[in-house]
Amino acid sequence: MRKKARKEKVVRFGISITESLLSRYDELISAKGYTQRSEAIRDLIRNFIVEQEWASGDEETIGVLSIVYDHEVGDVGDLLIDIQHENYESIVSSLHVHLDERNCLEVLVIKDKASKVKLISDELMSRKGVKHGGLVKTTIGKGI
Amino acid sequence: MRKKARKEKVVRFGISITESLLSRYDELISAKGYTQRSEAIRDLIRNFIVEQEWASGDEETIGVLSIVYDHEVGDVGDLLIDIQHENYESIVSSLHVHLDERNCLEVLVIKDKASKVKLISDELMSRKGVKHGGLVKTTIGKGI
Amino acid sequence: MRKKARKEKVVRFGISITESLLSRYDELISAKGYTQRSEAIRDLIRNFIVEQEWASGDEETIGVLSIVYDHEVGDVGDLLIDIQHENYESIVSSLHVHLDERNCLEVLVIKDKASKVKLISDELMSRKGVKHGGLVKTTIGKGI
Amino acid sequence: MRKKARKEKVVRFGISITESLLSRYDELISAKGYTQRSEAIRDLIRNFIVEQEWASGDEETIGVLSIVYDHEVGDVGDLLIDIQHENYESIVSSLHVHLDERNCLEVLVIKDKASKVKLISDELMSRKGVKHGGLVKTTIGKGI
Repeated sequence: MRKKARKEKVVRFGISITESLLSRYDELISAKGYTQRSEAIRDLIRNFIVEQEWASGDEETIGVLSIVYDHEVGDVGDLLIDIQHENYESIVSSLHVHLDERNCLEVLVIKDKASKVKLISDELMSRKGVKHGGLVKTTIGKGI
Repeated sequence: MRKKARKEKVVRFGISITESLLSRYDELISAKGYTQRSEAIRDLIRNFIVEQEWASGDEETIGVLSIVYDHEVGDVGDLLIDIQHENYESIVSSLHVHLDERNCLEVLVIKDKASKVKLISDELMSRKGVKHGGLVKTTIGKGI
Repeated sequence: MRKKARKEKVVRFGISITESLLSRYDELISAKGYTQRSEAIRDLIRNFIVEQEWASGDEETIGVLSIVYDHEVGDVGDLLIDIQHENYESIVSSLHVHLDERNCLEVLVIKDKASKVKLISDELMSRKGVKHGGLVKTTIGKGI
Repeated sequence: MRKKARKEKVVRFGISITESLLSRYDELISAKGYTQRSEAIRDLIRNFIVEQEWASGDEETIGVLSIVYDHEVGDVGDLLIDIQHENYESIVSSLHVHLDERNCLEVLVIKDKASKVKLISDELMSRKGVKHGGLVKTTIGKGI
């Protein structure tokens, strides 16, 4: 029998707001694709929480690092693999796209404390041959 | 007799949220100095609206540009004043601080469409002698 | 015979800078993992170019979207797949990680004009059940 | 006799870069108003240094906080002045603009460690009546 995921307790609270502020908000979130105001506000709340988690640096998080590199520069490909293996306990999974003859995109899902995720990302992004990199600071999803 | 500012109509709506998400939020906003959850959420909403206003570029906004410059580099001081005068219709006010023998801080309040504010800011920040600059993208405050 | 990638022409130019500024810079980039100052500066230049590409919105780019969602909320999983199929020409590849019983991480590599990548990302992030999302704005790597 | 500011020692170094990358860069900085490539690169370097200063939180910096508030909400005006006086040693100067009948813009120049500047800013931005706020994280200008 499939284990049923624990149902979380839902509470409800009210917000007072000027009509003009609310109507501008409704208009903007609908342009973003939202069909429910509550969901848009919950997303603002969750974004705020995830930002604070990353600022504190101590909680377990998920970082998704994307790097674009030229695989013909020195031995950058081998180097990137070495750094990943040194951090195999933090790197959950990766995805690779061959962009053209020379350029590669590598996406790494890193699960660790925020400070460690940043360290691994800095190390990978600073290698010669890596042209560009960016880190999405997201969450393991628990309790938010 | 002092003219009474128009009272804006206030409405109220409810949000459902899991208890765990709400309690984490309450904790974090209290660390930021908030005493009321409603006010913290209204601030999230207003931040979102102001961001969108700046992304669209067409509405009248307030930008506050801060630049740090070395007044001994060429004639940077005169240049900055010239650029400001060319844009006197957009620049509401300015504040100057002498940081040390060489370095100055100049803060400019710019009121115009977002795209124009960025243009003036870029022009000032790219001058030789200007070491650092930053723009706060804020709002005229109407309707939010 | 393997086709040899075209060798790009390399040029060299000089920069004058105060000794104090340069020594602070060298210290900071070495803490980030850089072993060559040139590479750190090329990375600053490339970051600047990619930012401008995204600001203009018209060039072909790569966006890597990461979303964390609760697969037990409504039919969010099906919805996300539908939206991806509607945009199959832009979505190059995806990676999925089961974070826990309820939470999923999905990473999508999107190749299109910046404006289109943002549109697809907004549509996915605004769905009910999607708790958090973030977009890395990167590059196809050509010419940079 | 006016004291002559100390002349800083200037050094020169070279950068190798592909021609295509350099020509795209030159084009973009010229659109931003730069007339010299060196100055644009020095600005990138200085921006990077100031960001790192703020991330470390321990060095003396300048923060310029801009807040927009509705002076008819409670006693927000008095509160803001109280908080400023409690921090008079950090707040160098301020500028005020009456935006309309209700809305005010207040700009504060704050000189302290980055962590303290953020604390003061959070305290002011979280007050009821303060609609929007933003902080420019800049520098005292020494050595950069």
